[in-house]
Amino acid sequence: MKDLYLNELRDIYNAETQLVKALPKMAQAATFPKLREGFEEHLRQTQNHVQRLEQIFASLGEKAKGETCQGMKGLVKEGDEMVSGDFEGAIKDAGIIGAAQRVEHYEIAAYGTARELAQLLGHSEHVTLLEQTLEEEKETDKKLTTLAMDVNRQALSASQQARAAHA
Amino acid sequence: MKDLYLNELRDIYNAETQLVKALPKMAQAATFPKLREGFEEHLRQTQNHVQRLEQIFASLGEKAKGETCQGMKGLVKEGDEMVSGDFEGAIKDAGIIGAAQRVEHYEIAAYGTARELAQLLGHSEHVTLLEQTLEEEKETDKKLTTLAMDVNRQALSASQQARAAHA
Repeated sequence: MKDLYLNELRDIYNAETQLVKALPKMAQAATFPKLREGFEEHLRQTQNHVQRLEQIFASLGEKAKGETCQGMKGLVKEGDEMVSGDFEGAIKDAGIIGAAQRVEHYEIAAYGTARELAQLLGHSEHVTLLEQTLEEEKETDKKLTTLAMDVNRQALSASQQARAAHA
Repeated sequence: MKDLYLNELRDIYNAETQLVKALPKMAQAATFPKLREGFEEHLRQTQNHVQRLEQIFASLGEKAKGETCQGMKGLVKEGDEMVSGDFEGAIKDAGIIGAAQRVEHYEIAAYGTARELAQLLGHSEHVTLLEQTLEEEKETDKKLTTLAMDVNRQALSASQQARAAHA
């Protein structure tokens, strides 16, 4: 059981470090200033999530190291496709938000599982740390939903203008 | 904007078809009968989700075809690692549930985005179909959380017994 917990922690740790590398690219690709700022803020949070995991590894007397998280690898690939794809402006922003929300949901599921295992194994101080991160991921997902509404409205009007210009 | 919507639909369509192939393996690897039945039931639901997407493609006059969904590809790989990994019995079940919840959350995020775009583009009949699937994915995630509690308790007691036998 402890092995499964460690396995989950290593998966999340690797996922978060992949995300630390991916977020600046998403921020750079975003055109909507609030979206860019959102990614920059989430990068700072993510660095903090990495530190919390390192704290947990230290308390278990384990090295903080990850095993390649295939799930996040695929999600980052999908985000890259959107970042370097053919969409432009608000429509690209909308696509990037879609990719980012998939990432957030990955983390919500992963931290949910890890917190459950920490609780069962009686690591109450880990539960607190994992819970803090879980809440921040949920908060980020909600912020992205709100941003998506603004961005999608802009994207729709941009696409209507393009169609009108084309007609 | 319509292109982004189609892009999202193709991503989800490919994700669902990948899942149709992956779920039987997860069901087979599960030892807890309720978990196995849960996967079998979700397979039937997933086949239905594929049909709903085909209905949407047909109404748009587009061919139902997917573009490789890298996110789901990674998630399925991660599930495979758990299915063919070293964990056994209830502990393996707990790991498989963790992988399955990541899949459900991927779909929750993806259908959320697609529904939003359908709404903006005025495809109200698509909104209804996507909403139905979204609710089923959320329901499945909740069921998995409940199953995880049972399975984790069994896994904990199995791991304690193993430790006692080893002592």
